[in-house]
Amino acid sequence: MITRDDAVAAATRIAAHVRRTPVVEVEPGALWLKLEFLQHSGSFKPRGMFNRILASDVPSTGVIAASGGNAGAAVAYAAHTLGLPAEVFVPVTTPSVKVETLHRLGAVVVQHGKEYAEAYEAATKRAADTGALFCHPYDQLDVCAGQGTLGLELLEQVPDVDTVLIAVGGGGLMAGVAAALEGRARVIAVEPRNCPTLHSALAAGGPVDVEVSGVAVDSLGARRVGTIAYEVAVRTGVHSLLVSDDDIVAARRALWDRHRVLVEHGTAAAYAALLTDAYTPAAGERVALVLCGANTDLSRL
Amino acid sequence: MITRDDAVAAATRIAAHVRRTPVVEVEPGALWLKLEFLQHSGSFKPRGMFNRILASDVPSTGVIAASGGNAGAAVAYAAHTLGLPAEVFVPVTTPSVKVETLHRLGAVVVQHGKEYAEAYEAATKRAADTGALFCHPYDQLDVCAGQGTLGLELLEQVPDVDTVLIAVGGGGLMAGVAAALEGRARVIAVEPRNCPTLHSALAAGGPVDVEVSGVAVDSLGARRVGTIAYEVAVRTGVHSLLVSDDDIVAARRALWDRHRVLVEHGTAAAYAALLTDAYTPAAGERVALVLCGANTDLSRL
Repeated sequence: MITRDDAVAAATRIAAHVRRTPVVEVEPGALWLKLEFLQHSGSFKPRGMFNRILASDVPSTGVIAASGGNAGAAVAYAAHTLGLPAEVFVPVTTPSVKVETLHRLGAVVVQHGKEYAEAYEAATKRAADTGALFCHPYDQLDVCAGQGTLGLELLEQVPDVDTVLIAVGGGGLMAGVAAALEGRARVIAVEPRNCPTLHSALAAGGPVDVEVSGVAVDSLGARRVGTIAYEVAVRTGVHSLLVSDDDIVAARRALWDRHRVLVEHGTAAAYAALLTDAYTPAAGERVALVLCGANTDLSRL
Repeated sequence: MITRDDAVAAATRIAAHVRRTPVVEVEPGALWLKLEFLQHSGSFKPRGMFNRILASDVPSTGVIAASGGNAGAAVAYAAHTLGLPAEVFVPVTTPSVKVETLHRLGAVVVQHGKEYAEAYEAATKRAADTGALFCHPYDQLDVCAGQGTLGLELLEQVPDVDTVLIAVGGGGLMAGVAAALEGRARVIAVEPRNCPTLHSALAAGGPVDVEVSGVAVDSLGARRVGTIAYEVAVRTGVHSLLVSDDDIVAARRALWDRHRVLVEHGTAAAYAALLTDAYTPAAGERVALVLCGANTDLSRL
């Protein structure tokens, strides 16, 4: 079970390696943006990866992960910073620009299988062979606790926040933040209708595999919410709101037009809940929106 | 003559209306980004416009300005916030998206002349007719003093900053910040080779008209540096470095790739000085880069 104390311990452990990202109050007394996409490697993921690595005895074979996305970039960044070898398994379909990012950070990149599940399978097998520390993109306690440091930071920056909106894929960020804020602020999960991992799990009474597709699949495309995330969501009462791809695209555009921040589609999902009637804050409610990643290709806008 | 005291007075005057924009330390102990493009209306300009308006007796005919760019949006935003009528003169060549922005903020938009100079001429004539408060985009003391509040804020955020890099067009921001930081930190002006207003003025011994063109002309395309800016530059020893359009385009791209911030070309000029050999910080030098605007059209990336 993950609690606030785990996030507090993680905060001390990773403090020297992650950025305290800024918050901007865009509607006075009503709406704050947490600019977490300014974190190293362009997403919140290094918080969890640094914590996973620093809380472990890492063998000389280093660390290993499976991800062509934000988690892979974060584990490569963390290993590079800490002077550890890293192997990152990605499917052969991973865009070359993402493979180059991993190479630039010094990771050994193994392209294996057409789907993420095959790369994941190969990575866990390789970890068993070499003894390298496996870093899951979301479903490990130390990973979730690291992500929870974002919640502690937000509480310092907006002490009387009532509600925090977070986009959910595998649920690691939601799990950490909901645990960190338990009893202090409400966390609302927002998911694309096309990637409803938490929503489906809450309906089914436990994590289930779902079909994933659509504009946010690159960052929120986990097929199944983590067991840790599910447990925290049930325990702390996190609800999942669904938004459409059209609403996500419009929300991403609105974040630029109104606030001059450009994020990835998955991140914009959280704002879509506010722009549509998926979530309507009460009068006087103080809402923070976590903008958790901006690893998007400018040439494809 | 503008001094630090003018900026201090401005800071008190405008505090309720402008954002304290965040700073991110992107190279520990070496480089800070001042994210001023997160200011209302997407650039630093409201600082000066609020100060100009709040320091003046505004007649019932309101305020008037000539600008299809950041200054126009800022004066419209400030007037809208303060409940004052605003007229903004722009050339007929102004993109419709910018005219719509002004309309949305409640300004009366007058499209006049093919070039900025004609719109400017018409605006000053109209101000003389109606008595409305004319708000110059850069060459008024209260405007420069308002921009100087950015310098005071930066000193609080990075107390031991050595050097501040600022892109210069008309020079209002540079003038305010150089006055605010006089004796405490060095200000370096960076200009596109294609819009060298301050560079030419320093060479000629006073402001002169220059030809302007290139990628940054929409934000740095003033034809002549302000007299206030020239005076402050000479007094405080501000030098002007020139960068090419290619370097500006590359710097804008690098700001996105490395730091996930997207700015307008004029703003990226300041970063271009660091990426090229135009400016090389000494060992241990603490440099702040002012990212002063992001009013750029995403569809034209």
